Amino acid sequence: MDIETLRARHPDHWMRACAIRTLTLDAVAAANSGHSGMPMGMADVATVLFEKHLNFDPAAPRWPNRDRFILSAGHGSMLIYSLLYLTGYADMTLDQIKNFRQWGAITAGHPEFGHVAGVETTTGPLGQGIANAVGFAMAEENLRARWGAKIVDHHTYVIAGDGCLMEGVSQEAIALAGKQQLSRLIVLWDDNGITIDGKVSIADVTDQKARFAASSWNVLSCDGHDPEDIDRALVAAKASDRPTMIACKTHIALGHAAQDTSKGHGALTDAAQMAAAKAAYGWDHPAFVVPSDIKTAWEAKGARGAKAHAEWKARLEALSAAKQAEFARIFAGEAPAKLASVIRGVKKAAVEAMPKLATRAASEKVLAAVNPVMTETIGGSADLTGSNNTKTADLGVFTPEDRKGRYVYYGIREHGMAAAMNGMALHGGVRPYGGTFMCFTDYARPSMRLSALMGLPVVYVMTHDSIGLGEDGPTHQPVEHLAISRSTPNTVVIRPADLVETAEAWEVALTAKTTPTVLALSRQNLPAVRKAHVNQNLVAKGAYVLEEATGKRQVILIATGSEVEIALKARAALEAEGIGTRVVSMPSMELFAAQDEAYRKRVLPGGPVRVAIEAGVRQGWDRWLLGERGKETKAGFVGMASFGASAPMERLYKEFGITAENTVAVVKSLL
Amino acid sequence: MDIETLRARHPDHWMRACAIRTLTLDAVAAANSGHSGMPMGMADVATVLFEKHLNFDPAAPRWPNRDRFILSAGHGSMLIYSLLYLTGYADMTLDQIKNFRQWGAITAGHPEFGHVAGVETTTGPLGQGIANAVGFAMAEENLRARWGAKIVDHHTYVIAGDGCLMEGVSQEAIALAGKQQLSRLIVLWDDNGITIDGKVSIADVTDQKARFAASSWNVLSCDGHDPEDIDRALVAAKASDRPTMIACKTHIALGHAAQDTSKGHGALTDAAQMAAAKAAYGWDHPAFVVPSDIKTAWEAKGARGAKAHAEWKARLEALSAAKQAEFARIFAGEAPAKLASVIRGVKKAAVEAMPKLATRAASEKVLAAVNPVMTETIGGSADLTGSNNTKTADLGVFTPEDRKGRYVYYGIREHGMAAAMNGMALHGGVRPYGGTFMCFTDYARPSMRLSALMGLPVVYVMTHDSIGLGEDGPTHQPVEHLAISRSTPNTVVIRPADLVETAEAWEVALTAKTTPTVLALSRQNLPAVRKAHVNQNLVAKGAYVLEEATGKRQVILIATGSEVEIALKARAALEAEGIGTRVVSMPSMELFAAQDEAYRKRVLPGGPVRVAIEAGVRQGWDRWLLGERGKETKAGFVGMASFGASAPMERLYKEFGITAENTVAVVKSLL
Repeated sequence: MDIETLRARHPDHWMRACAIRTLTLDAVAAANSGHSGMPMGMADVATVLFEKHLNFDPAAPRWPNRDRFILSAGHGSMLIYSLLYLTGYADMTLDQIKNFRQWGAITAGHPEFGHVAGVETTTGPLGQGIANAVGFAMAEENLRARWGAKIVDHHTYVIAGDGCLMEGVSQEAIALAGKQQLSRLIVLWDDNGITIDGKVSIADVTDQKARFAASSWNVLSCDGHDPEDIDRALVAAKASDRPTMIACKTHIALGHAAQDTSKGHGALTDAAQMAAAKAAYGWDHPAFVVPSDIKTAWEAKGARGAKAHAEWKARLEALSAAKQAEFARIFAGEAPAKLASVIRGVKKAAVEAMPKLATRAASEKVLAAVNPVMTETIGGSADLTGSNNTKTADLGVFTPEDRKGRYVYYGIREHGMAAAMNGMALHGGVRPYGGTFMCFTDYARPSMRLSALMGLPVVYVMTHDSIGLGEDGPTHQPVEHLAISRSTPNTVVIRPADLVETAEAWEVALTAKTTPTVLALSRQNLPAVRKAHVNQNLVAKGAYVLEEATGKRQVILIATGSEVEIALKARAALEAEGIGTRVVSMPSMELFAAQDEAYRKRVLPGGPVRVAIEAGVRQGWDRWLLGERGKETKAGFVGMASFGASAPMERLYKEFGITAENTVAVVKSLL
Repeated sequence: MDIETLRARHPDHWMRACAIRTLTLDAVAAANSGHSGMPMGMADVATVLFEKHLNFDPAAPRWPNRDRFILSAGHGSMLIYSLLYLTGYADMTLDQIKNFRQWGAITAGHPEFGHVAGVETTTGPLGQGIANAVGFAMAEENLRARWGAKIVDHHTYVIAGDGCLMEGVSQEAIALAGKQQLSRLIVLWDDNGITIDGKVSIADVTDQKARFAASSWNVLSCDGHDPEDIDRALVAAKASDRPTMIACKTHIALGHAAQDTSKGHGALTDAAQMAAAKAAYGWDHPAFVVPSDIKTAWEAKGARGAKAHAEWKARLEALSAAKQAEFARIFAGEAPAKLASVIRGVKKAAVEAMPKLATRAASEKVLAAVNPVMTETIGGSADLTGSNNTKTADLGVFTPEDRKGRYVYYGIREHGMAAAMNGMALHGGVRPYGGTFMCFTDYARPSMRLSALMGLPVVYVMTHDSIGLGEDGPTHQPVEHLAISRSTPNTVVIRPADLVETAEAWEVALTAKTTPTVLALSRQNLPAVRKAHVNQNLVAKGAYVLEEATGKRQVILIATGSEVEIALKARAALEAEGIGTRVVSMPSMELFAAQDEAYRKRVLPGGPVRVAIEAGVRQGWDRWLLGERGKETKAGFVGMASFGASAPMERLYKEFGITAENTVAVVKSLL
């Protein structure tokens, strides 16, 4: 159909959709940057979705039972900003639209969670939104099973482009959703045949419909500019017992001179071409002006959800006060009151038993105590359940047959797992943790970065955290991964040394509200280093004095995780020679950096020689070694300067010089 | 078919295949670690492949026209080690097999490129091998088109497991191979239905054959234990005009008590169960003993390739001496003699013109000069060609219709691109470089790590290297990515400041033989900072004095890339106040660290206050700021401590305090 026909057939729809198109053109032109073509191409689909299907209430954007809308093709951010403005979200003012991509505006270049109500997740890095959506849909299924459909019962809609579908993470998401039969997940594929470099066909000949069908999706098609056809497809999608992909045939930059070309992907700012496009739309209003009849019509569509919201609220309020409080607690991301005593119990038992234990096994012990009292946790692993020690007896397995199950077999999909966990955390009501080998944080990196950027309290259970994993060799041995995780803003990395520290680490992770936690856990057994119980969470301080020097303090050894044992042995040897040596356990640099300066100075006073021991690269250590303010002390490092090797772990530690003997030698060279 | 029937039908094949199975059992038992089940399951497929199809010469493992065999399911390393031993590779002795996974042995836990002839790529991180293979096959197509089928004409075979196919990168590889119609690529899927966590079906219901077919692959099936059926499928695969996936139905850990279970994936070391399996095979020889008739039969199969190799050598030697030298040069990875003068030419022109230029545009200028004289380069981008400035006029585009084309439209597949580039570099004869945004190194991380681990001179052209990209916002703005790349062993990161430094950076990258290079390039225009021509490559020194202090040197400002301009402005302000200030340009920390101590001290003498300026996180800087040996100086940092924001770049630099004014203030606070 040409534009004339589209206009003539559905004139009201057309004008409402063109409000999106023209706001997009105007905002991108004002910013002189951005992406015009996608909102112009998907305006009809989005209009039908928001008007007829999406269950939302602009007056209560965080209403827990709303449908979720995810713009996986995040570069088309003006699509969602326009929709939020048009349907009446209070914070999305016309001024915000006019300030698109400017400092301080909530209308960032790509949609950012937390900046603006109605943006459910941060997108832009392609493929993330569709993979988040799988987590949203799993959270919904789990909560519906546990709370009943009166309380939780909604859909997750995604708009995804060719970029999203080319990214590998989309395959992980598609396959996981297909296996899990997530029938409340509906993906609208913007099938416009165009990417930045040209036609999709220069890089891809994939039959996307066949690809989704191969993973057991329901697959539909529609004309992405025909509102009736779009509506028909959405109705059919909602009736399916499987996740649905709707291939929406669209024209990028519809009606513009750049229509159906890769130029249409970017910023369309030529004044004459903009004017011509608006004329073709039959839109003769000044920039940023949406006539009141169109705005009013849009707001009426937006107001549609208030009734459903009110009815839901009444149903929620019919629950017992205790249940309502519990529902509020889990959606607020508050840990249960019992958590602190459970952690304390684990710690007390630990100092009595003093088990020699890998910290991954310690982690399982903690989870076994926590999961029964913190029933919002949803655990999982990327096909390393037995190695990551992430499954406890009470969880059950999340499957199409048991939606109450709280353990997810993610398959060999670290990236998809991380993205799904982001989606779960964003959905709310559940608290996801998931495991893989520390080295394979590499695969999950893009989503781990987004956990940090969005401030989501996802817990990454990263076991086999050094050459201590032994024979699997350098492909599986992290050496730079602690540095990588620590380099990322708003990420807390914790590498506990024994069961007590592991319990404290989990307490930090499970009470975090706006920070992801990376737990780095050993494969190998470690001795208990915390020998007396204290109620205080010492890991939460980031670093603390584990053993004090006897006599004059000449040396401070700083170590993390599995290397604390080595520090203690080195201390014993040094003390035996009369060299006063303090051992500082530093499970988390970020938590230590957050302490006040007085505490930091108490733990790491200027003067004594400092040597750090960690089976990873030195990068990140110099701040603590050389002194935060410079000129403090002489320092050394015992760790890795290369990739590892394949051999039993004892041999590797010896060959790479990560031993008490070598630590003593390094200390002596500095004294 | 049961084992009895298999034995009876093809007794000679059976015993040769069981030599793989029993060597695997014995080696894993001796190491008490490893993965027995996969080699035991795929022994029949591998036997037929090596005996009848794979064109290789154990006496000349690096013969350029050999077929490539890639064990993407790298945990099954004993499969390839067994095959190399059996077919007569000299360095794969029985002692090496007996020392599987031990310190110093070439038989690492996962197969490592460079350790052992016959291992074409390092695998273990799943999905990498199949994605490397796409690069191997593209290199072969390109070289065949340019050198003729008499010189280059071979296949690439891959064994991949369910883990490889679940990883997202496999989708990027499959789609790229399908689009490129890489008919010399044959993937043997070990369809055993088992992963570590249990049956594949607990995490996946994907119809893999339909999935490959959706990306235009030729898809076949065979009984993975029936040598005739395997042979039939391989013959058919070689006849196809498209890449072929053969679904090989197998039993993991065939013949062992753990057959068809997830236990069978790991180390099968129970003595009684091993004995029972060997008895079932009809194998009654001591551990590690392969009877001489079986070994001789295997070696005869191995010797098969010598004739093809000799014939190929004769054809190569029929070429002109110049052509032979050129062939040898490109396979040795030597830069052409002309490269140095071309780079010098760019540098001379640059200091004359002093262009204000983004370093990504500078990079394009360099490539435009280099590509015509270094015709082994193969460029590309993950759908950001115009932004990465990676395409020069002479390259042509690599397509099924033009195999001589040297530019690859990789699609939105950063991970697949990086893995394919690894494959090309491993194949030899071509020199790959490829671009994306610096922030999306995250997506490519697993393959970038393998570039470093394998020592491959791949060039990563990473543009938009800071908040300087502006309005696209924090999802696209790297802040931790320089630190991440620098944290990785054997990786050279170069962040040039202008056209001269960019030319020098490319010279470093294109003459590297065992190191990948990450070029971090600006989106925004930068002034020329190198004003006089010197023949010497100053970037190769890592850091150098760009401007000296006049009068007493009180301050050293260290900066990289786009922030060198800010350092120069800050210097001018400080000098105007009589504060002697040196500016050090430090395009590469790794290259600087490799200089001798005397040079490092000359550039960064103790005493003056040091302040570094880089629009990234501080991690990695303290070594150069606080002093390599500690106690050297007072220091400050002007950079990022958080994620960025969405706004025009000038505003972002101001808001985040990365300005000459703030640098001056930081300096003064330290003086």
